[in-house]
Amino acid sequence: MATERTDGRVERGNQTRRTILRHTMDVASREGLEALSLGRIALDLKVSKSGVFALFGSKEELQLATVRAARRVFVDSVVAPAHEAAEGLPRVWRLSEAWLRYSRERVFAGGCFFQTVVAEFTSRPGAVRDALRDAEAEWRRHVEELLGRARELGHLRPAEDPAQLAFELNALLTAANRDSLLLDTEAPYARARAAVRARLRAASADPALIERVIRGTAG
Amino acid sequence: MATERTDGRVERGNQTRRTILRHTMDVASREGLEALSLGRIALDLKVSKSGVFALFGSKEELQLATVRAARRVFVDSVVAPAHEAAEGLPRVWRLSEAWLRYSRERVFAGGCFFQTVVAEFTSRPGAVRDALRDAEAEWRRHVEELLGRARELGHLRPAEDPAQLAFELNALLTAANRDSLLLDTEAPYARARAAVRARLRAASADPALIERVIRGTAG
Repeated sequence: MATERTDGRVERGNQTRRTILRHTMDVASREGLEALSLGRIALDLKVSKSGVFALFGSKEELQLATVRAARRVFVDSVVAPAHEAAEGLPRVWRLSEAWLRYSRERVFAGGCFFQTVVAEFTSRPGAVRDALRDAEAEWRRHVEELLGRARELGHLRPAEDPAQLAFELNALLTAANRDSLLLDTEAPYARARAAVRARLRAASADPALIERVIRGTAG
Repeated sequence: MATERTDGRVERGNQTRRTILRHTMDVASREGLEALSLGRIALDLKVSKSGVFALFGSKEELQLATVRAARRVFVDSVVAPAHEAAEGLPRVWRLSEAWLRYSRERVFAGGCFFQTVVAEFTSRPGAVRDALRDAEAEWRRHVEELLGRARELGHLRPAEDPAQLAFELNALLTAANRDSLLLDTEAPYARARAAVRARLRAASADPALIERVIRGTAG
């Protein structure tokens, strides 16, 4: 009985934790991580401030837990779906499509979580900035790896530098997110998609491959 | 004598105003416009809070004055230097070079002022967001106009859409600013420059023109 009661409390704690993090990810994606005071979150969710404190301990811990949770959502929304496509160019294209959908469908209320909070923390040294740098570095490494694999498979021209191409694709995707939010229109998504497509066509060893990939007849 | 004393006071007021705005632009470029409380700015600059209040009236007025001042600095640093180059592709290239220099040389302490504060205010309706939207819209219009003129002059292929190209150039420039700040390296500037160069070469009616422009033997 004692164990069951404990399990029940642990489960309720986990449930509250998930509810809080779902909310803090949305708030931070709109207003930034500095908006996450324990008092404000408790008020928003009508839970006690001491309850939030018991679960997270400090504002910085809440910020760090929110970054970790957002990384998991990002992986589920963008990285994992791309793995359903074949290696090489098909997977690169699927990753780009998944990223644009992740932003356009507002998986986080304020668009890409990382874009909002990275701009906020770039000039604020500390554990939160370090966590964001890790997340960004991991994302870039992942894009570079997929592009490197596409080159190994002969899908991309040998002269293409995966790091350069990763920089460009990331620039186009994140610009679509920012512009659509700022200018309140979906047009930037079509622009980013067209630009990624043209860039991958230019980088392809066989320019027809990217068109087959887009039509879904390759990979 | 009364007039001289008044003029002296006005001049000192203007001087204080300029000192404050120089500081608030740097603070906002690093920490965002929400960091601009009248009390904090007074403390930073060792002036009285009532003095800051007398000059700006409210935090929002201080934020709006900071955005206006930053637009002037941006025009002086990026838009004006490009006008020293000939119309068409030479001016487009010079604009891109001036933008990268503006970011790399940290004209604002935290890199591009607008990149930090636009991410901060995208999801916060109000006068500050409206001012930032105006500034961004004006910048995009300007890039599009320079590209449209380059097309009229026959420098760009007729099939190139200036709005699409403006989106892509802006994406590359702003990504260089963000990545260099986040990853603490200058490498993204070379990546952005290479990407802009390749994109303009692909868009050029005469691919050799962009190379002559870069070598400084055209325009």
